Amino acid sequence: MKKSREEPGAEAAQDRARSFVTSMDRGLRVIRAFGERRAFLTVSEVAERTDISRAAARRFLKTLEALDYVGTADGQRYFLKPSVLTLGFAYLSSLGLNEVVQPVLTSMLDRTGEPCSFAVLNETDVLYVARAYNHQPLRAAIRVGDRLPAFSTALGRVLLSGKSDDELRAIMTTIQLKRHTPDTIIDPLLIMNEIAKIRRQGHAFSASEQIFGLTAIAVPIRNAAGEIIAGLGVSTQFPEMAAKLETAIVPQLKDAAATIELAMRTNPSPLSI
Amino acid sequence: MKKSREEPGAEAAQDRARSFVTSMDRGLRVIRAFGERRAFLTVSEVAERTDISRAAARRFLKTLEALDYVGTADGQRYFLKPSVLTLGFAYLSSLGLNEVVQPVLTSMLDRTGEPCSFAVLNETDVLYVARAYNHQPLRAAIRVGDRLPAFSTALGRVLLSGKSDDELRAIMTTIQLKRHTPDTIIDPLLIMNEIAKIRRQGHAFSASEQIFGLTAIAVPIRNAAGEIIAGLGVSTQFPEMAAKLETAIVPQLKDAAATIELAMRTNPSPLSI
Repeated sequence: MKKSREEPGAEAAQDRARSFVTSMDRGLRVIRAFGERRAFLTVSEVAERTDISRAAARRFLKTLEALDYVGTADGQRYFLKPSVLTLGFAYLSSLGLNEVVQPVLTSMLDRTGEPCSFAVLNETDVLYVARAYNHQPLRAAIRVGDRLPAFSTALGRVLLSGKSDDELRAIMTTIQLKRHTPDTIIDPLLIMNEIAKIRRQGHAFSASEQIFGLTAIAVPIRNAAGEIIAGLGVSTQFPEMAAKLETAIVPQLKDAAATIELAMRTNPSPLSI
Repeated sequence: MKKSREEPGAEAAQDRARSFVTSMDRGLRVIRAFGERRAFLTVSEVAERTDISRAAARRFLKTLEALDYVGTADGQRYFLKPSVLTLGFAYLSSLGLNEVVQPVLTSMLDRTGEPCSFAVLNETDVLYVARAYNHQPLRAAIRVGDRLPAFSTALGRVLLSGKSDDELRAIMTTIQLKRHTPDTIIDPLLIMNEIAKIRRQGHAFSASEQIFGLTAIAVPIRNAAGEIIAGLGVSTQFPEMAAKLETAIVPQLKDAAATIELAMRTNPSPLSI
């Protein structure tokens, strides 16, 4: 390894640039181009969505086809194949959720009768990585792998409360704060107030901001260094339960979070770093 | 596009070779190197598991790190980050499961009280892409994204029954037929008999072959061309329910499969091709 001579930051940046595999980046963008309501994409559509040339998009699709990650019926419209799921599953397996997190979620579900979620921050979204729920036809059907805007959910705001005010303001200038219901808070100042409150009281609360009629509560999960690495939340569509969330459920959630934190300290997970 | 002169198959193969992006293949292999019980991997371990050089493995890890798909605490041991989940989720979203499959699974769960699964074949595994289940502490915790060996599960054998006998024999010579319980059928001849029976009766049955005490039943989902594209199954750990599976539950599963097939014909999914 070459020894650092001058400015270490600059050399690290150079090293990063030298070792960056552009085709890896592009290939992953091609996979991500597919999704919600766009199951079938032509070469041109993939090129447009990924901002790469038509010729390159075609090469990536052909490669992914040879690897059985995408398929095509007519040679024109491409679609993802099940192998893609195994990429995300490599992540889920690596977390060891089955041993540590899932039992805690299940026990929370048993005690509250309401769905319990474990989520992390992914860019400006809250990403659900584990869930425990009973089937209830009227309930919002959030599933593992789903993403929701972090700013308008209790779980998301708990995760954002780990960022500095400067970071939060920077994020808010780059994204569009969107109104999902009449109750969604979209004023940056009110959001900052809400996050300051979360830091003080140690839990987040949101009512009808993402899905009308859905009230949610969440607490942070911290690593050994005290950094917020995940969130644990309970949501309900029943008013009588919603009234109990902050009083009866928050203490239980805090206990559950402590159990997860302790388990992660003795058995390190990629999340706890 | 160059016109085909001689042998079209050979030209297609050449075309495939020309457009194959090797780094895309390698990068995806690096992601898949992580997983069950191996959350943290060094450059050497990734190189070994993916069969690529140490230098190349390092470049891929650095690239994936810059893209926020992997992280490292100490620069030595790498781990996957949540963004990886969004790759698999692109696939799940593209299937439109929420609209078509999930309501059918939920309705089967309501009627049987037992977990209901929707799965596809991925290489020689059955890959679970949708599930409906109530929480039951003693139940086998199969989750979306999980894979089980196709040959020893009812869902897997239903999917395999769409292959020709020659294809099945070829697969069986390349894999190791493994005994998971004392009841697992591992004799190729008995497996072929079992699959012939599935073709005749239109459903598959397995008892205690994958998980001791777990009985399962499954029916195929076919596309418009009649090809088997997915499987729909119910499993139980309760003997009184197991006794009813073939008589009472199979007709219900066949109705449910017909509902999914009809919906997929009017609203094509990547699965139905």
